Amino acid sequence: MAVGKVDFPQMHAVSGIKLGTTCANIKQSARDDLLLIELIEGATCAAVFTQNAFCAAPVVVARANLQKKPRWLLVNSGNANAGTGEQGMLDAQASCVAVAELNGGTEEQVLPFSTGVIGQPLPIAKVVKGLPAAQENLIEDNWSKAAHAIMTTDTFAKGYSKIVEINGQKITVTGISKGAGMIQPNMATMLGFIATDAKISQDLLQECLSAAVEQSFNRITVDGDTSTNDACVLMASGQSVLPEIIEGSDAMVAFQAAIDEACMRLAELIIRDGEGATKLIKINVQQAGNESEAVQVAKTIAHSPLVKTAFFASDPNWGRILAAVGRAGVERLDVERIKIYLGDVCIVENGGCAAAYTEEAGQEVMNQEEITVTVVLGRGESEQRVLTCDFSYDYVRINAEYRT
Amino acid sequence: MAVGKVDFPQMHAVSGIKLGTTCANIKQSARDDLLLIELIEGATCAAVFTQNAFCAAPVVVARANLQKKPRWLLVNSGNANAGTGEQGMLDAQASCVAVAELNGGTEEQVLPFSTGVIGQPLPIAKVVKGLPAAQENLIEDNWSKAAHAIMTTDTFAKGYSKIVEINGQKITVTGISKGAGMIQPNMATMLGFIATDAKISQDLLQECLSAAVEQSFNRITVDGDTSTNDACVLMASGQSVLPEIIEGSDAMVAFQAAIDEACMRLAELIIRDGEGATKLIKINVQQAGNESEAVQVAKTIAHSPLVKTAFFASDPNWGRILAAVGRAGVERLDVERIKIYLGDVCIVENGGCAAAYTEEAGQEVMNQEEITVTVVLGRGESEQRVLTCDFSYDYVRINAEYRT
Repeated sequence: MAVGKVDFPQMHAVSGIKLGTTCANIKQSARDDLLLIELIEGATCAAVFTQNAFCAAPVVVARANLQKKPRWLLVNSGNANAGTGEQGMLDAQASCVAVAELNGGTEEQVLPFSTGVIGQPLPIAKVVKGLPAAQENLIEDNWSKAAHAIMTTDTFAKGYSKIVEINGQKITVTGISKGAGMIQPNMATMLGFIATDAKISQDLLQECLSAAVEQSFNRITVDGDTSTNDACVLMASGQSVLPEIIEGSDAMVAFQAAIDEACMRLAELIIRDGEGATKLIKINVQQAGNESEAVQVAKTIAHSPLVKTAFFASDPNWGRILAAVGRAGVERLDVERIKIYLGDVCIVENGGCAAAYTEEAGQEVMNQEEITVTVVLGRGESEQRVLTCDFSYDYVRINAEYRT
Repeated sequence: MAVGKVDFPQMHAVSGIKLGTTCANIKQSARDDLLLIELIEGATCAAVFTQNAFCAAPVVVARANLQKKPRWLLVNSGNANAGTGEQGMLDAQASCVAVAELNGGTEEQVLPFSTGVIGQPLPIAKVVKGLPAAQENLIEDNWSKAAHAIMTTDTFAKGYSKIVEINGQKITVTGISKGAGMIQPNMATMLGFIATDAKISQDLLQECLSAAVEQSFNRITVDGDTSTNDACVLMASGQSVLPEIIEGSDAMVAFQAAIDEACMRLAELIIRDGEGATKLIKINVQQAGNESEAVQVAKTIAHSPLVKTAFFASDPNWGRILAAVGRAGVERLDVERIKIYLGDVCIVENGGCAAAYTEEAGQEVMNQEEITVTVVLGRGESEQRVLTCDFSYDYVRINAEYRT
């Protein structure tokens, strides 16, 4: 159940990027679970991957192939091909070989992605068998089907699309993501695929994506469990009439802003679909000594089960937020200087409850579906934001009842 | 509801340590909520306190007074006197003054402790009014009433008592603790009070307590939320016939072992009373490069909502444990060397599911009420253990329904 209004948007096709889907019967249900993406020759492609040491086999292969001018991305849902040891690596490589053979390319030009159950062998025969059907469906105007094909326990498809004008020329930015926490079936994963028709070098595209992800996908949390399969890809087909975007240009600034916006929206949609979520919580930490301590404080609040259950109960239980700030591990924290706000309502100042605070004012904010918590540390100039959701009975149900 | 059998033990009185309780009407219910402990002149006293930067007013006062040869401890439940700013400090000091006046001592000889709601003023008038009754009840054989008086949402009183023989002489070690997570009413707190009749210097006693706490209270977690009021106190009355225990002696080794055992048991009782807990989980990390990374891996598993809900569901969902180990932040972790066991059953080896693993074997372990998870990192010689509990519907209910 989504928090807020999340209609799937009109998706603008991206010239030079084709998508094809099929049902390869990897999932239990008879829904599309295989997505093939084809990049036009000369397109550039950037990606970021999970930092989990137990990363999945496809992550290992995709990371290695990223520098070899990828032409195809193959994505399956229903099986994560993670915790699968040597056989998992062989299966991931086999899926690349299958794509290459079908297209007359090399296996190194293929990036594989998997999402779904951990620890079960990838049914590679099904993947190979389903591939020709996905290949036949390859068209540019196919983003909606693609968004659906990568879903696992997601309750809605997640998309973003915008025509952006840079130096008087239009470029398109279109992307999809999936993820609802870390549940399905042993652990869901976050995946994001964003495409643009801008022309930009691989190195600059990677810088752009890394910067955008750091402030978007790396600033969301449902339950603090980093998946084995997380990946986000940015593809640039170079088919727009806009001249190549180069480092330090005004066009680069505008392009970065466009990608930032796409990543922020796709990340936010994942939180709006967080398992059991009934509320969207935005945690702003201001006047931190540096970025790292700002994120540290924000994530400590975002991961606190006590804070999350209080939000679920719409309970203005500000002592739990105060306690989370206090245990975040920031050295020499002067609690006298800290201010904490629920929405616009000051709840903590001078080391305790704000003088003007009333339970009614706090309750009014807590009753809302989208809530902003602002923590002012009074230590410096740094500001960071983390998005999370509340913690409900349904979170326990979804994660405890699976497989039973 | 306790996990396992937790009968309150027979509590041996400790010569030189008297306890008195009363109902001062700080709690809603008409139960004892005020505890006064009197130490015989010449007794030594060690303590450790929460590291939460927003620590409660009584923690600030008790920490300052600890070096001034404390003679009295005053403990109230029902109100944490935390997040109460300047007024909270004045109230904590006033409670010390009241004890001192009643006894002809100085306020610096009093250590105050509070546990209960955060952010509400301590009803200091009730504390002062209740004090004479607690004073009148001061006797040595009063540990059971003391254990009950410090409870908040605890579902059972927590005690430990043992007569230990050192160099042919008997000493007594008796202690109580409270805590069931961080719930009641905004945040419960862990408190521990342990007494012995051994004779030992303040410095050595502090070293002994710090070492014992590091391996016991600092190795348990219900929900990862460090309270603003946590404190553990070790009192030594010096009334036993055993000569003074000195550094480096065999007696010190035996004494440390006795205090370690008391702290371990009192800590374990808190986990057995964890909010909504249905299972006790012992997480052993072996062959770690150092103590810090062993604790880091163990706590990442212990705090993972996905792992905790799987335990609640008795689901041998080993992929979640593997993923938690992988994201624990240990640098250059070689997943090929890691082995993970559920009880005696090897679930992960060579980077994936153990060859001999069967779902039936995993299920058999998960069905038990007490479960040991062992992670062998293959990096060194360090070993650490963390205790935790599972994550159930009742955890959400207890923490979401309060105040509604």
